Amino acid sequence: MRDVAIIGVKNTKFGELWDRSFRDVVVEAGVGAVSDAGVVGEKIDSMFVGNMSGGQFVEQEHIGALIADYSGLAKDIHVPSTRVEAACASGGLALRQGIYAVASGMDDIVIAAGAEKMTDVPSPKASSALAAAADREWEGIMGATFPGLYSMVAKLHMHKYGTTSEQLAEVAVKNHHNGQHNPIAQYKSPITVESVLNSIMVADPLHIFDCSPITDGASAVVLAPADVAHEYTDTPIYVKATAQASDTIALHDRRDITTLDASVAAGKRAYEMAKMQPKNIDLVEVHDCFTIAEICAIEDLGFAKKGEGGIVTQNGETAIGGRIPVNTSGGLKSCGHPVGATGVKQAVEIVEQLRGEAGKRQVDGAEVGMTHNVGGSGATAVVHIFSRNR
Amino acid sequence: MRDVAIIGVKNTKFGELWDRSFRDVVVEAGVGAVSDAGVVGEKIDSMFVGNMSGGQFVEQEHIGALIADYSGLAKDIHVPSTRVEAACASGGLALRQGIYAVASGMDDIVIAAGAEKMTDVPSPKASSALAAAADREWEGIMGATFPGLYSMVAKLHMHKYGTTSEQLAEVAVKNHHNGQHNPIAQYKSPITVESVLNSIMVADPLHIFDCSPITDGASAVVLAPADVAHEYTDTPIYVKATAQASDTIALHDRRDITTLDASVAAGKRAYEMAKMQPKNIDLVEVHDCFTIAEICAIEDLGFAKKGEGGIVTQNGETAIGGRIPVNTSGGLKSCGHPVGATGVKQAVEIVEQLRGEAGKRQVDGAEVGMTHNVGGSGATAVVHIFSRNR
Repeated sequence: MRDVAIIGVKNTKFGELWDRSFRDVVVEAGVGAVSDAGVVGEKIDSMFVGNMSGGQFVEQEHIGALIADYSGLAKDIHVPSTRVEAACASGGLALRQGIYAVASGMDDIVIAAGAEKMTDVPSPKASSALAAAADREWEGIMGATFPGLYSMVAKLHMHKYGTTSEQLAEVAVKNHHNGQHNPIAQYKSPITVESVLNSIMVADPLHIFDCSPITDGASAVVLAPADVAHEYTDTPIYVKATAQASDTIALHDRRDITTLDASVAAGKRAYEMAKMQPKNIDLVEVHDCFTIAEICAIEDLGFAKKGEGGIVTQNGETAIGGRIPVNTSGGLKSCGHPVGATGVKQAVEIVEQLRGEAGKRQVDGAEVGMTHNVGGSGATAVVHIFSRNR
Repeated sequence: MRDVAIIGVKNTKFGELWDRSFRDVVVEAGVGAVSDAGVVGEKIDSMFVGNMSGGQFVEQEHIGALIADYSGLAKDIHVPSTRVEAACASGGLALRQGIYAVASGMDDIVIAAGAEKMTDVPSPKASSALAAAADREWEGIMGATFPGLYSMVAKLHMHKYGTTSEQLAEVAVKNHHNGQHNPIAQYKSPITVESVLNSIMVADPLHIFDCSPITDGASAVVLAPADVAHEYTDTPIYVKATAQASDTIALHDRRDITTLDASVAAGKRAYEMAKMQPKNIDLVEVHDCFTIAEICAIEDLGFAKKGEGGIVTQNGETAIGGRIPVNTSGGLKSCGHPVGATGVKQAVEIVEQLRGEAGKRQVDGAEVGMTHNVGGSGATAVVHIFSRNR
């Protein structure tokens, strides 16, 4: 395979973007990334767009062509554009398809984007749409929602390992702290452990501040063969690994619901591909759809021993300046979680960090970063490793 | 890029499969293709599943992981599985993603599948779901359905080129004639021009027999690097070209609605990649969602001069035994059109033909075949060329 680099990035504002349409936000991200990369439309060989559920959220499928059209890339130049979907991991997989395309040698300049417009429907409809990421016939139909599923993970993690509500809250506090310095973040207010513990309970033990919100937003990156990346930018960021794994879609079919086996498998494959270990990673964006999910993620990816994710967080080891900064962007918790966009947004954060452009969120001397994007309750996991050095 | 071959294929029965669930039909296709290829689960590196709208049809997204799970490929071996979507071209794009994966060198044995379960919702809901393949904000919201959009294409084709209702009907007659010999076809009864012209009008000039039906079904192929294909089968079929193009999603934004520019562009790219011309193609499966669509397709792909698609059909040039047999499978018209499956089903038909296993549908001496899969009213087109010879 050919080596691949990221040469341009862009996030839109994440939040309740009631004055803008789905197509508006994706086009902003795509055009922004292309502009950052300094490429022109005619140079673009293909596009991949991560989107979980345009059908349910905005009654629109055929997202790939729609976005090519509204970006001015369909008429006359007919740029191929493909939507990929794996629930909340749709963005990570759009990035992965883009890497396949460049690695194959078939395409040179490729856009990988992700987008979701979730606030155009009432909240119950949004919850129902999101439940389509779980097993409809065995979970959704019984009334299981994602807070309910992750609350079971949290309960068992507490039971087996002594993880506390305070430790869960520390994840939210850290991510809101980081997010206050991220201009795209939906929630920029710092919070305290007390405010998390006093917020309303959604699904015991998960308070509303343990949950990522409903969000609109889009993100995009531009990929190029590593050999030519320097023609476009002085700071190409190289893709060292792309890895994906599946697990059972229903939580009750898992070996142990406190471990996301798909995260473990994808992480292992990524470390092998990059010839790296957890100690080589300077910072990581993990999929904190709920606070417990971040704790599981840092354990599953080898940044904490099993059962110690809560302690490690409480000790400050995952803060900026700590042993392994986690979710410097603010994560899904503070930035918001437009489900199709999140996986790409994570890559944008790592690129900004490795370029040294992360402002008050900057991890000093960051050379290698990882992203970890999860679909549903862990039926899909996708992990990427990026480096300043080829 | 590495050369790619197809080493296994399978279609389920296409039709109103009321006794079976979405997951049942996809698993049957996948397991059938894997069995045809003689591979075991542990050898599978990745899966790509084309599906237009699980969200709207069966309230299920996260299709890739679901299918990996129900195929026994998620637990323990964690095979990556990704859904791709481009409306009715979703299947063709799943095949294309599989080709990227093998071509890149990252994956060896890859499943490309397509599936749709459309009869679990009432017909008006299905029509509304399908309208999500068009531009919701400019077409769907005005009440435009696909028969309505393609009727405008037909009207203008008649006006500009003198195409007649009888010529449209000849497409349906030919495809039903071919489909009677296809064991998977939804409609196996031969029909006459009179029966088409006397059938109820859906959107003038399109009668109901000019339209492909609502269908359940799934198809799958197994891909491998061409270098090792002979280890699995005596008759590998080689991928000579994969090409994709986008156009405006709304019909009214097109240069000329009687030409699908995306089909022209994808065809041109495919011929270039394969270093072939239309005269090198022995048979083609085109996207006959409506009879007029087949007439446009054979013109756009270079098998008939512009405006002569109807005459060529009436003359029998596209029949089995004719100059360029079109839709030997029976096409979308007779086989049915489970929208996510169709693009893969077309590839299965070409493989069966090139293997010499097509029974009474066999095109004598077929060496090279093409597939042409369209999303919406032509915002996405994907074309593949396959050959018996590497």
